Amino acid sequence: MAQGNLSVVLHAQGDLRLEKRPVPEPGPNEVLLQMHSVGICGSDVHYWQHGRIGDFVVTKPMVLGHEASGRVVKVGSAVKHLKEGDRVAIEPGVPREMDEFFKNGRYNLSPTIFFCATPPDDGNLCQYYKHSANFCYKLPDNVTFEEGALIEPLSVGIHACRRGGVTLGSTVLICGAGPIGLVCLLVAKAMGASQVVITDLSTERLTMAKELGADFQLTVKRENGPQQLAKSVEDMLGAQPHITIECTGVESSIQTAIYSTRSGGVVVLVGLGSEMATVPLINAAVREVDIRGVFRYCNTWPMAIAMLASGKVNVKPLVTHRFPLEQAVQAFETTRQGLGIKVMLKCDKNDQKP
Amino acid sequence: MAQGNLSVVLHAQGDLRLEKRPVPEPGPNEVLLQMHSVGICGSDVHYWQHGRIGDFVVTKPMVLGHEASGRVVKVGSAVKHLKEGDRVAIEPGVPREMDEFFKNGRYNLSPTIFFCATPPDDGNLCQYYKHSANFCYKLPDNVTFEEGALIEPLSVGIHACRRGGVTLGSTVLICGAGPIGLVCLLVAKAMGASQVVITDLSTERLTMAKELGADFQLTVKRENGPQQLAKSVEDMLGAQPHITIECTGVESSIQTAIYSTRSGGVVVLVGLGSEMATVPLINAAVREVDIRGVFRYCNTWPMAIAMLASGKVNVKPLVTHRFPLEQAVQAFETTRQGLGIKVMLKCDKNDQKP
Amino acid sequence: MAQGNLSVVLHAQGDLRLEKRPVPEPGPNEVLLQMHSVGICGSDVHYWQHGRIGDFVVTKPMVLGHEASGRVVKVGSAVKHLKEGDRVAIEPGVPREMDEFFKNGRYNLSPTIFFCATPPDDGNLCQYYKHSANFCYKLPDNVTFEEGALIEPLSVGIHACRRGGVTLGSTVLICGAGPIGLVCLLVAKAMGASQVVITDLSTERLTMAKELGADFQLTVKRENGPQQLAKSVEDMLGAQPHITIECTGVESSIQTAIYSTRSGGVVVLVGLGSEMATVPLINAAVREVDIRGVFRYCNTWPMAIAMLASGKVNVKPLVTHRFPLEQAVQAFETTRQGLGIKVMLKCDKNDQKP
Amino acid sequence: MAQGNLSVVLHAQGDLRLEKRPVPEPGPNEVLLQMHSVGICGSDVHYWQHGRIGDFVVTKPMVLGHEASGRVVKVGSAVKHLKEGDRVAIEPGVPREMDEFFKNGRYNLSPTIFFCATPPDDGNLCQYYKHSANFCYKLPDNVTFEEGALIEPLSVGIHACRRGGVTLGSTVLICGAGPIGLVCLLVAKAMGASQVVITDLSTERLTMAKELGADFQLTVKRENGPQQLAKSVEDMLGAQPHITIECTGVESSIQTAIYSTRSGGVVVLVGLGSEMATVPLINAAVREVDIRGVFRYCNTWPMAIAMLASGKVNVKPLVTHRFPLEQAVQAFETTRQGLGIKVMLKCDKNDQKP
Repeated sequence: MAQGNLSVVLHAQGDLRLEKRPVPEPGPNEVLLQMHSVGICGSDVHYWQHGRIGDFVVTKPMVLGHEASGRVVKVGSAVKHLKEGDRVAIEPGVPREMDEFFKNGRYNLSPTIFFCATPPDDGNLCQYYKHSANFCYKLPDNVTFEEGALIEPLSVGIHACRRGGVTLGSTVLICGAGPIGLVCLLVAKAMGASQVVITDLSTERLTMAKELGADFQLTVKRENGPQQLAKSVEDMLGAQPHITIECTGVESSIQTAIYSTRSGGVVVLVGLGSEMATVPLINAAVREVDIRGVFRYCNTWPMAIAMLASGKVNVKPLVTHRFPLEQAVQAFETTRQGLGIKVMLKCDKNDQKP
Repeated sequence: MAQGNLSVVLHAQGDLRLEKRPVPEPGPNEVLLQMHSVGICGSDVHYWQHGRIGDFVVTKPMVLGHEASGRVVKVGSAVKHLKEGDRVAIEPGVPREMDEFFKNGRYNLSPTIFFCATPPDDGNLCQYYKHSANFCYKLPDNVTFEEGALIEPLSVGIHACRRGGVTLGSTVLICGAGPIGLVCLLVAKAMGASQVVITDLSTERLTMAKELGADFQLTVKRENGPQQLAKSVEDMLGAQPHITIECTGVESSIQTAIYSTRSGGVVVLVGLGSEMATVPLINAAVREVDIRGVFRYCNTWPMAIAMLASGKVNVKPLVTHRFPLEQAVQAFETTRQGLGIKVMLKCDKNDQKP
Repeated sequence: MAQGNLSVVLHAQGDLRLEKRPVPEPGPNEVLLQMHSVGICGSDVHYWQHGRIGDFVVTKPMVLGHEASGRVVKVGSAVKHLKEGDRVAIEPGVPREMDEFFKNGRYNLSPTIFFCATPPDDGNLCQYYKHSANFCYKLPDNVTFEEGALIEPLSVGIHACRRGGVTLGSTVLICGAGPIGLVCLLVAKAMGASQVVITDLSTERLTMAKELGADFQLTVKRENGPQQLAKSVEDMLGAQPHITIECTGVESSIQTAIYSTRSGGVVVLVGLGSEMATVPLINAAVREVDIRGVFRYCNTWPMAIAMLASGKVNVKPLVTHRFPLEQAVQAFETTRQGLGIKVMLKCDKNDQKP
Repeated sequence: MAQGNLSVVLHAQGDLRLEKRPVPEPGPNEVLLQMHSVGICGSDVHYWQHGRIGDFVVTKPMVLGHEASGRVVKVGSAVKHLKEGDRVAIEPGVPREMDEFFKNGRYNLSPTIFFCATPPDDGNLCQYYKHSANFCYKLPDNVTFEEGALIEPLSVGIHACRRGGVTLGSTVLICGAGPIGLVCLLVAKAMGASQVVITDLSTERLTMAKELGADFQLTVKRENGPQQLAKSVEDMLGAQPHITIECTGVESSIQTAIYSTRSGGVVVLVGLGSEMATVPLINAAVREVDIRGVFRYCNTWPMAIAMLASGKVNVKPLVTHRFPLEQAVQAFETTRQGLGIKVMLKCDKNDQKP
């Protein structure tokens, strides 16, 4: 095992450093992982640029990264289901307390949960990282490390579509064709959605969405009003969509989401915007359009692995850029500029394959 | 049968008249009812005062009233389950088309539904009224006509609590102690809620709520901020409530509802306010607090009758005033002034009992 | 319009006749259809061979057929959503009463429902047939008449998978690879099932299932015990399936279904066998494996059309034989012998295309 | 703390002994409890009489008891939410592994779960007992130790009614008026059931059920056929019950449960009988009557405490006998003879109050 542990550490707003940290020692219920592939998420970039997200503030150096996969190199004494050499995907949230949320199966809502790269918890954009073995999931041979890392964003899509109740024959509107909008698209189609409309300001992103299976693309112009956009969506589908998944967080887009959705349907809020939003709540209420948020995900890794192994979902086209760990700052800059879809950092010098 | 059919007709904003209309003839699937007890609803008063509610505008004379019960006096040729003399409660919404909503069991969302006293459909505040027999429900002997009429507001409470998922051991916050807040209280307790907090500006209303079973009363003062009120609710219960039922429609109260509700819980919007509302949507979203509206109700009459017949719910204390039909204008004025809880109009000269 | 109306009429057990009946006149809420394609169902053959299914006994001549599509040739006076020339798929069950089941959205359970070719109600294996317009669904241009007719068996699969809760990443065991097992397979995959095991006595049927997308085929031998088969299923999948859809009605297969299913999962009973069955109920109960039956379907036509129009489900390979209506007896004989999968009767002399 | 730890130990079938065992030392996440009240369950008696229940066999001495409450006397180093002196109710099942069932909120289905007095795990019918602090729930001052102990059987009722979907206005049939039937009765009424019919062979038990709130009692005679009994239930209620909770495990009673239940309803299997049962599965399937088992419970203690503290459920009348721990054998003999409802053992010499 290497002596040093090259890690991408955010010291403060704008101060991102590559530095060597000690290799950690796994506890009895943990495994030590040699990291292989770690995707950069918008939230990583946001911490770098702003030093905070809402109430989560970077007050001491923190390793970034939470979309990750690696190889088990050391196994804690109490761990039974993993062994050295296993290739695993990492679920970054690990509940610390057996509270009501954990017991009820909604552990993502546990207020004391550990979460990679959410202050003050370190992430896994490094060479060696230890994690709760119960939240490491063995990858089948036909699932690559990069697919394993992409389970994290895919999980957001799974959780959003599940909360929205997407099922056979659903028609779905997805607002925003960024990485999260695109995984929602992939998942909605895999769950049986018959038609998906996707919106964005960028025609380039919409082209990508089309390639990934979107049935209709709607280019949003800043002068379009929410009700006008809702009308366009209805015209495209021939009826209002059953479910809308809002991935932008922009107030006018949330308004569009509500106006667009069919009576009795669901708006899922995935994108996060400003604290207060002005929305046509009465319009939603009297048509019994439910508004449901998502906070990360829970219980998604096993089904995501099943989908990847069976080939039902193809996430490979999402990776548009790759950088060795040593070029992490350049990789972050690429993400910051909004180039491509997903930038992947390769942490293992001896294996930079997907 | 009487020749005339004394009816309470709204001709235009502010122009409420008592006038004789012809006695209608029931169609093959209808029954003719001699009306007995009709409650006055806030919406009746609102049409009288403003001539409209949202997009529903009174453009021609309309009979008011939709909280009603009566006696069958004539039975359409195709009706099998009712006979002359049956005492029935009236469900005022009758779907006109067998659309997707009706087929799916959510007929209240059918856009072409007939609904008593919603323009242009006439209500049943009169002496003789015909209605779809399928939406008239026979009352057991131990359920009074007034209880039958109160099934309508009770249904709002049932639908709201059902949409909120109230069950054994739920803790519930109800915002607003008017008639609808009070029926929500009665229903929540009957569904097994362990503790209910109710809020209002009026201590008088809160006293009534206490008598009806509220565990905690919180007097809202105009200077209280939503987060401060949320904190008071949490302090009272020892934890945040699982479910909040918002019955005021006031923006600050909706904000209080969101801040108050436990992660993973539900806010039910019953009260209707202004078209756009500014609310902490992110706070709800990241804690997966679902926001669900209610539009009237569906499939509530049979369970309401079961509850009344078994004595599980006691709605009788809600009736605080009674007027003969001939004094309808005075009765409306009483409701307009917010006196008491429920004003009941007695349409049958020969039987003015509850 | 043709004077005669050639119809396939079952007079009594074993007595199937082709005879001319009058062309019916549609009522105000009905449409008259020129029939195009009608599939033969196992139940049609069962009535022919046995004169009854359970309590449903053929006591007077009855037209067979209920998997059907046709073209509107006359429109009742009150019908708004259809016009002459529209191509439609027919939902054969039409509730007669607005009872609790209909109001709740489970109209298939209404005890007085009309249902094509269930005694005493006539089916639609004929040239001209009238039906409730509300239960005729317009076909998009890219959906063929035969696909329209296949919506009926497809609906059984949709209802079964929906009752079973099939969703993204589900693993599913389907017992029986007959027409119903195969539509369950198609639907399960379309709903996101990651892996489907299908069983049958016939390797020929299993080969067809493989072509339609089954991940594993298990040939059942009469000497295999239920627990042994359950073990084979678990070995194939690497874990017990979440959901089992039992399509044979055979007692030992129901036993296999229970033993096979994962704790907390669901067994859906689609196949109908003898009245009493001896099953390991305790095994199911203490592992909270729910047992749920299906009775036909409800609310499936719109989603089925959406799936066919979007190409998410391909039912075309199910049609293995076609006969003109005039050769109906030969067609029934083909089905009786278990040849192929689905036999389609072509009722329109001038258009025998799919 | 006392040196010895008087415990009720089952050495083998029929060999029940009172013996002193060492006082255990709590681990970091455990608490040591001085036991106060422990109810005797039918399963305790069954192990004593038969040495096994199904696959669970007593092969080495095992402490009995799992309906228990006590006082915290020592707190593990990592425990935060409990302190010395706290009065707690004990949830006897503690998952050992963070498997899919635990993560999904159905930890009762975890195959490796620890469970008090299920071989080989020791129970808590003793003076000092250590338990996972996460599964000890603090009792409010107004809830007695005996009520705390009764949360265990009450939890079976909660889980059964929840699985059955009991809600406002439900009509419920409960087969069997033993302790479990009675707690199901209490819970069903608290959840809003409008009418409950309860059956038993013993009129004495039915009298108790009536006192606890049953609306109808049906005395079962051995010569009554299941369909005849189903008819009696329907006659009593005026309609078939929505939900049946079967608490006897007797085959003919399961048959009665299926025949009795309304189409679209649910039969919950609580009682355990022989491994194979012959039942009218087709009758259930074609009427979409779901059959759902219960295995113990999960996530019930908090809501049970809420119900007891608020006075919504009164379990106190269930305790008909009390014995000091020293007279455990006599207490077991009382339960074996079926005297009364619940026998409570008092483990604390200095506090034998309820």
